[in-house]
Amino acid sequence: MVKRSDFKLVKRPTSAIEDDSCLVKIQYMGIEPAMRGWMENRADYIAPLELGDVMRGFGAGEVIESKSTNFPVGTRVTGSFGWQEYFLHRSDDAPLQIIPDGVSLDEAIGVFGLTGMTAWFGVNEIGKPKSGDVFVVSSAAGATGSIAGQLAKAIGCWVVGISSTDEKCQWLTDSIGFNAAINYTHEDWPQRLKKACSGGIDVYFDNAGGDVLDVALDQISDGARIVLCGGISRYNSTAAQTGPGNYFNLIFRRAKMEGFIVLDYASKFNSAITSMKPLIASGQLKHKATITDGFEALPDALISIFEGTNIGKQIVCISPPSA
Amino acid sequence: MVKRSDFKLVKRPTSAIEDDSCLVKIQYMGIEPAMRGWMENRADYIAPLELGDVMRGFGAGEVIESKSTNFPVGTRVTGSFGWQEYFLHRSDDAPLQIIPDGVSLDEAIGVFGLTGMTAWFGVNEIGKPKSGDVFVVSSAAGATGSIAGQLAKAIGCWVVGISSTDEKCQWLTDSIGFNAAINYTHEDWPQRLKKACSGGIDVYFDNAGGDVLDVALDQISDGARIVLCGGISRYNSTAAQTGPGNYFNLIFRRAKMEGFIVLDYASKFNSAITSMKPLIASGQLKHKATITDGFEALPDALISIFEGTNIGKQIVCISPPSA
Repeated sequence: MVKRSDFKLVKRPTSAIEDDSCLVKIQYMGIEPAMRGWMENRADYIAPLELGDVMRGFGAGEVIESKSTNFPVGTRVTGSFGWQEYFLHRSDDAPLQIIPDGVSLDEAIGVFGLTGMTAWFGVNEIGKPKSGDVFVVSSAAGATGSIAGQLAKAIGCWVVGISSTDEKCQWLTDSIGFNAAINYTHEDWPQRLKKACSGGIDVYFDNAGGDVLDVALDQISDGARIVLCGGISRYNSTAAQTGPGNYFNLIFRRAKMEGFIVLDYASKFNSAITSMKPLIASGQLKHKATITDGFEALPDALISIFEGTNIGKQIVCISPPSA
Repeated sequence: MVKRSDFKLVKRPTSAIEDDSCLVKIQYMGIEPAMRGWMENRADYIAPLELGDVMRGFGAGEVIESKSTNFPVGTRVTGSFGWQEYFLHRSDDAPLQIIPDGVSLDEAIGVFGLTGMTAWFGVNEIGKPKSGDVFVVSSAAGATGSIAGQLAKAIGCWVVGISSTDEKCQWLTDSIGFNAAINYTHEDWPQRLKKACSGGIDVYFDNAGGDVLDVALDQISDGARIVLCGGISRYNSTAAQTGPGNYFNLIFRRAKMEGFIVLDYASKFNSAITSMKPLIASGQLKHKATITDGFEALPDALISIFEGTNIGKQIVCISPPSA
């Protein structure tokens, strides 16, 4: 379980900027379930965090001092800034991403950030739904799930979301066009899911793990693809992790279950963004952020993500962007 | 647990043959782990068996009476005969397969039968190993596992088998050319497997399920493919089935786990057999059968497969073929 006491607020002066470096004032910090794994170093696809390190996080901000020709003062950028108020970018650091004009900060770290990219590549490179397919997504009202479902809808799928409250289910169907949404806290939700997916699930985009994955596995169609994106039910668990007992249905249904890491697709991010922009312009792809204020709100924002209260992208506003 | 008392010996006269039908004297009956699932109707990819039905089974035999021009007396055939001494084939039944000259009965139901086809399509359509890949197979001394490993070896893989006795491990390395074999009854077998697969597992061909699958999942490389072929550890279990707790490693390793049903590839069986023949002729693909005698040995042969005593294809000789 993530606790406030896992974090310590440390005040240090910012270093002076050197040639070719610049100083970013961090304005928005995105909160992701994966942070839980980074804190425990369960995941070995990314460098480990040590006790005392700055907490890793992807954010957006503005260059306020610069000796860099690439990033003059006023440039709006995103990057792996960590949970800080300021980020000193040196020329040999991984490059910052410049936020194009007309893209807001929350779009930059949400729908056009790792969240949106995760949805895009999970759908298009792993799940590969076709028009008419039944597409089911868990943690459907979360940042990635809500975008994944809308992308599938734009492809022509029948889209069903799985979520934890009636309020979120209503948002999915009434606000962002899901065909149906199932609240998995109702005891008979597996039957409800089956009814909503008559004919079985062709693509299941899993952000949940646990029992939800097992129920979905029980309801897949022949040739189904299960996109393993995350497992929010697992991240906070200290119990021995059991796997999906129904995995064997992958044999009977000639189906596959495949994982992916969005960072592997970095070279294709720009083309994904180009494809997503018209969907946003036409209203087929809506995105929503839950924004809380103040640097010290960061731990609570992360804790809240595991309580399932947020809709869309969870963001902490560290410093309000200038209008 | 399969028990002798699950079966009842029933004597009935054979029906008289009609126009276009023929009577097959069944000589060999293949025994497969999947039979356990058919008995319980856990699998819904194949028609259910009801209490009182003839037990399903694929065998080989000879036509001894015929009013069919396709299958004259003396034709050697394979088919889904069931556990019987004679099989009456009618013209509207699924066609019998004629065994070509030069192919023995045990080859016909083993390496060229469903067993060999399962290995071939699991390797070539699902696992798709490349030369230099580390290929691991469980139940490696079994009928399917031993063929799958040799097919991967012929492709140029480093092949490691997982099996339950030192005797079977020795057979894998000394007789059929596996690079290494690990006895999973030794407590430190996961470490031994890791050592034998330095660099991680690229393709894992799973016939086992249970803990063996979990250990393999823990040791996969980036982009690994897990072929879900069977789960002998599951078939006899009445406990609630847990799944592989390490399935989450499919995300970190960008890997996939895929099931298949060999019957889906029936239209390609002949081309697979054509590709396998030169491997047999060159000695790269050896096959072995464990044959027990007599119709009444059928239940014990099925029971023994779950005790892990057989090497290669388990066959019951119901009636010896004429020389």
